[in-house]
Amino acid sequence: MWYFSNPASGLDISEVNDAIEEAFAEHGRGNVQMPPKVYVHLDKGDFRTMPAYIPSLDIAGMKIVNVHPGNRQSGLPTVMALTIILDIDTGLPLAILNSTDLTDLRTGAAGAVAARYLAPASPATLGIVGSGRQAIAQVNAICHEIDVESVRVWSRDEKNAVSFCKNFSGIDCNPANLPRVCSADIIVTTTPSRKPLIKDEWVTEGTHINAIGADAPGKQELDPAILPRAEVFVDDPAQAVHSGEINVPISLGLFSPEQIKGTLGELVIGKKKRNARDEITIFDSTGLAIQDLAIAEIAMRKMGDIELKFP
Amino acid sequence: MWYFSNPASGLDISEVNDAIEEAFAEHGRGNVQMPPKVYVHLDKGDFRTMPAYIPSLDIAGMKIVNVHPGNRQSGLPTVMALTIILDIDTGLPLAILNSTDLTDLRTGAAGAVAARYLAPASPATLGIVGSGRQAIAQVNAICHEIDVESVRVWSRDEKNAVSFCKNFSGIDCNPANLPRVCSADIIVTTTPSRKPLIKDEWVTEGTHINAIGADAPGKQELDPAILPRAEVFVDDPAQAVHSGEINVPISLGLFSPEQIKGTLGELVIGKKKRNARDEITIFDSTGLAIQDLAIAEIAMRKMGDIELKFP
Repeated sequence: MWYFSNPASGLDISEVNDAIEEAFAEHGRGNVQMPPKVYVHLDKGDFRTMPAYIPSLDIAGMKIVNVHPGNRQSGLPTVMALTIILDIDTGLPLAILNSTDLTDLRTGAAGAVAARYLAPASPATLGIVGSGRQAIAQVNAICHEIDVESVRVWSRDEKNAVSFCKNFSGIDCNPANLPRVCSADIIVTTTPSRKPLIKDEWVTEGTHINAIGADAPGKQELDPAILPRAEVFVDDPAQAVHSGEINVPISLGLFSPEQIKGTLGELVIGKKKRNARDEITIFDSTGLAIQDLAIAEIAMRKMGDIELKFP
Repeated sequence: MWYFSNPASGLDISEVNDAIEEAFAEHGRGNVQMPPKVYVHLDKGDFRTMPAYIPSLDIAGMKIVNVHPGNRQSGLPTVMALTIILDIDTGLPLAILNSTDLTDLRTGAAGAVAARYLAPASPATLGIVGSGRQAIAQVNAICHEIDVESVRVWSRDEKNAVSFCKNFSGIDCNPANLPRVCSADIIVTTTPSRKPLIKDEWVTEGTHINAIGADAPGKQELDPAILPRAEVFVDDPAQAVHSGEINVPISLGLFSPEQIKGTLGELVIGKKKRNARDEITIFDSTGLAIQDLAIAEIAMRKMGDIELKFP
């Protein structure tokens, strides 16, 4: 059993995006086992366990990941994760991966795959809401998939938006107000908001939205009025209904699970398609355990750092 | 973050039994978070993820554990496990424990706690069905809790029963046939059987049974006719209905969840009691995530072996 302390280092983003796309394809084909993630609530945050099995990749295991919004004050990431990979034939643990950075990458990759299938224009302008780790990961991943003309970013604190743009050399990136960010071809929301940030009137026909931030009951970033105007794709229906962007609108009776157009996996395999290029599309991402397995599979092609005695 | 390669080494069994009893008490008081364990099915076995939080012990985390019945042929244990413990306040992983042996100990401890509350006699005779790792753990744990006069053990292969008895110095232990094993004051079943092994007519009034082996849908060790004659206590109602000794009888309409008398935790805190000493009692154990946390808490009082870089 090997421990990988920094498995994200040196990963090729295009390779990650392709692996995540294939994982979604397997999900779309119904070829994976992935029970809904399980939440445990702590005083200052929560943690989730996410088991899965992808037979076509011969990989099985689970990720444990916390969300503690106050962690920045103590110098720790809000989200930290470990992934355990088991041998399919014996159940023997093969690897433990520090999957904090892998979580960023695999979530970014899901946004990139959605952009590949749903971007309304090429080159496209990218509007980023939020300036944290996931905002960076989304820009990096999307710029590997589609031709991005420029990036506009909004943060509650403009200083953070300015710092954010320094992460990207060779990309035209500028802070902007929310309406301006929302006039981009692709909007990506990455905040932990529990109240809608994106107003209905700011979003015009033909825009694609990656709704990334909402990953727990009560979280939402979009005005619910946008949803009935849009074709809504989700990563996984059960998880999206429970904890995705659509969870609050559903609980308020403003959206229903029957209005989900399809999954990202179904888009990838061509089982579902969007109706027209001038419609609003939304990808509601909650984060799937199969994404964690798919990226672990790539990371494990390198050697681990430390061999741990087991059993 | 520390790795504990052999955390079971040197643990005091009485201390483990007491900690497990207290975990059950907290469960009985409704003071724990413990979602039902989640199963993922592989070709040659399965694995389960078991998250939980015990506020009174300040401990949270999860165990991942496999069951691969064919592993003996490849020289590996059938059941192997890892436990991850997170810091409550930040979600930072504090420890990874090789919990294969801890799993044996904490399951044995649950049997010992049940025997403490439900043994019909003292000293008591102990009848063990099966001769594997869990059978050994049950004898060790029970002998620390109650006065055991003698042990009778049955195994499909008598050689295994003979070897089994060599594990216990100072305990009168002998192989026996099943009816003789079932004439003991306390019967403990520890097999992976999917067909009843214990016949109704072998079990007399006043016997206590620890039904340990059934931990997945389809598994059972007792003739379902024994259940209506008995007061049935479970470790956790949801898990027992899903995968405990009662799961097959329930699916066949021979037992109903309403017939469960109570939980072991409710027995421990005195909220439930058995009716009379001459009734048959059954403790249906499926194994709880809180047991894994409680034993991890003791094991982590020692130093881990290796400090792992995280985050």
